[in-house]
Amino acid sequence: MDLTPSPLARPFPAMPAIAGVTLCVARARYKDWDRCDLTLVELAQGTSVAGVFTQSACASSEVELGRANIAQGAARALVVNAGNSNAFTGYRGREAVEQIMDQVAEHLGCAREEVFVSSTGVIGVPLPKDKARAGVAAALTAEPCGWEDAARAIGTTDTFTKGAHASAMVGNTRVEIAGFIKGSGMIAPDMATMLGYIFTDAHVAPHFLQELLSAANAQTFSCITVDGDTSTSDTVMAFATAKADHPCIENWESPGADAFAAALTAVCRELAQLVVRDGEGASKFITIRVTGAVCDDSARRVGLAIANSPLVKTAIAGEDANWGRVVMAVGKAGEPADRDKLSIAFGGVWTAQNGLPVEGYDEAPVAAHLKGEDIDILVDLGLGEGRAAVWTCDLTHGYIAINADYRS
Amino acid sequence: MDLTPSPLARPFPAMPAIAGVTLCVARARYKDWDRCDLTLVELAQGTSVAGVFTQSACASSEVELGRANIAQGAARALVVNAGNSNAFTGYRGREAVEQIMDQVAEHLGCAREEVFVSSTGVIGVPLPKDKARAGVAAALTAEPCGWEDAARAIGTTDTFTKGAHASAMVGNTRVEIAGFIKGSGMIAPDMATMLGYIFTDAHVAPHFLQELLSAANAQTFSCITVDGDTSTSDTVMAFATAKADHPCIENWESPGADAFAAALTAVCRELAQLVVRDGEGASKFITIRVTGAVCDDSARRVGLAIANSPLVKTAIAGEDANWGRVVMAVGKAGEPADRDKLSIAFGGVWTAQNGLPVEGYDEAPVAAHLKGEDIDILVDLGLGEGRAAVWTCDLTHGYIAINADYRS
Repeated sequence: MDLTPSPLARPFPAMPAIAGVTLCVARARYKDWDRCDLTLVELAQGTSVAGVFTQSACASSEVELGRANIAQGAARALVVNAGNSNAFTGYRGREAVEQIMDQVAEHLGCAREEVFVSSTGVIGVPLPKDKARAGVAAALTAEPCGWEDAARAIGTTDTFTKGAHASAMVGNTRVEIAGFIKGSGMIAPDMATMLGYIFTDAHVAPHFLQELLSAANAQTFSCITVDGDTSTSDTVMAFATAKADHPCIENWESPGADAFAAALTAVCRELAQLVVRDGEGASKFITIRVTGAVCDDSARRVGLAIANSPLVKTAIAGEDANWGRVVMAVGKAGEPADRDKLSIAFGGVWTAQNGLPVEGYDEAPVAAHLKGEDIDILVDLGLGEGRAAVWTCDLTHGYIAINADYRS
Repeated sequence: MDLTPSPLARPFPAMPAIAGVTLCVARARYKDWDRCDLTLVELAQGTSVAGVFTQSACASSEVELGRANIAQGAARALVVNAGNSNAFTGYRGREAVEQIMDQVAEHLGCAREEVFVSSTGVIGVPLPKDKARAGVAAALTAEPCGWEDAARAIGTTDTFTKGAHASAMVGNTRVEIAGFIKGSGMIAPDMATMLGYIFTDAHVAPHFLQELLSAANAQTFSCITVDGDTSTSDTVMAFATAKADHPCIENWESPGADAFAAALTAVCRELAQLVVRDGEGASKFITIRVTGAVCDDSARRVGLAIANSPLVKTAIAGEDANWGRVVMAVGKAGEPADRDKLSIAFGGVWTAQNGLPVEGYDEAPVAAHLKGEDIDILVDLGLGEGRAAVWTCDLTHGYIAINADYRS
């Protein structure tokens, strides 16, 4: 975190402790640095777990094992290594992950499948087993730390620490949800990896926690993009310690399910947006709302086509209400669209409607909006009821500087 | 063409005249400039035509009419307007195109469907009918010009003129193929539009000319990318005047079909690569070969995922053999891939094989290769026989400068 904070940075929030969650950090020294780079989260017995993972066909061993072990539904620990993604390291990388799982499982007296591991950083270098063993040993005997310490320890080239929390009433019991995330800062040759962890004292059955996390993911983490490049290690996990005193939330009929789902989604949305706010070189936070699509998923894909367009992103960086580039991006999205029903607004002002430029629209409020930090683009396709919101940042010289000018 | 030529520019070649093709240029003054911006190509009676057009769902009227009128197979004229793409201009834009078609058809005494129109430039401004009418009238009475004059007149923010030619033996008759193209230079708020035109004196049946052009397109224009952003106006057309003295090429059994197809594909490949060489901000010309895919189309999609990755493109700009980013791009391509069978080479040197970094590979020739202007990346997926080549350029500060720093 020695980098200059993003101009879009947000302060780390004050977050409550979550019963059943103990955070510790240690120095594994995966890189030549003097900072905590190994995070251990110990979870109470009875903690249920859910996770969503990268769709990459070249996923890391951590992702493969995590995806497999989610199935048994219980978690006792999470270990996050920063500075080495351990991706594309074959059997040697896998051995390092299994060693960590065994070491922690032995200490806690749990099954190895209840220990989840993530790694982020350089690709193609097997995680060094000796450093991992010493780091885990140090973390297992360390004093507990706070949320921001853990958020800092999982970061690599992030420019600020990122956390979010919410609470929900389950019957008469207040439950807390807190999470932290890293991502979207990167210096060559590191990968942009997004790792996010959410903890709650609520009592939620694993299968339903997975359903809620997957649903929240579809509206939040799956709706952000910085540069359209998908990491080999992206991971978001949720852990529910069941320490709060309420009947288990088993399904949508359970009391408090709706409130819990809303709070979980709010935490996911905030964490996702914080990643965009730390997008490499970002100077503007862009919200793209798409309405009138044939379905919600189509709306999301159109939104992402706009959000990933380098021409749209550079136009916003240049504070230029270039709706022609938005038309272009809609056209290339591969989704149903009708040029003559398309309407586009910047900052709430329609610049094009029903396939034609709006003649004589008031450019002053549009220009003022584009000079701001938060940019709103609304695209109405005029076809159906599908809608989505997508978040991204602009594409600036800072992105090139971070990814081309500095060498590994 | 007042811009500094791309460092990857190539001189305009000496190209032979094509019997039955007459080129004229004129000043329509679509923008506030003093240059020829309207090109008229008159084609002899008996000319067959084929075309491939943008897949954009927001295509211009020019594209819609051209696609429809290709069906009747004959062409007598082509008009290209530069400085205004006439895209997203609704019925008023369509009227301007129809006016041009009628004006030329009346002059030549042909059907309006035999007159093809393209436009490139700013989006959302209807093509001014009065300027178009005066420009067409001037072109219809102008002295014929040469290939490079026409190539210059269709350009917008291109930094150099682009042409290519080839010849083929059809039986004992030598036929000539010549083409020119514009594309990939752009200043906000103009669209990156690629317009390419190929002329031959060969005698080719329209349906077979279309088959050959579509096949060549799949291996050439469909395999280039600068920034992954697809124009609303992209057009490539081929015109065969039948002035050469040989029996009509009707199908693959016709004498000379193979030779003609090979020459046509060579011209398309050269034109496509010239567009990449004028990619905005380009400093490196990158060839990505993908082998071992499940099929050729899958190989092409993997190649384009690599070619469109901002992280790969910035790594090349930084002369960094960052094969981890290539792994990432393969992983996100959505095509069959197996991490543990994946191999990657830069400049012919394997840096990763079968899912593992090659330990102790010789970095010196790789570093030397990356300092050069032409970069070769080879990716073997190890799954099947599918293969493809894709061409792109790097992503530099120049791209941001062109698209964000200057305002419309």
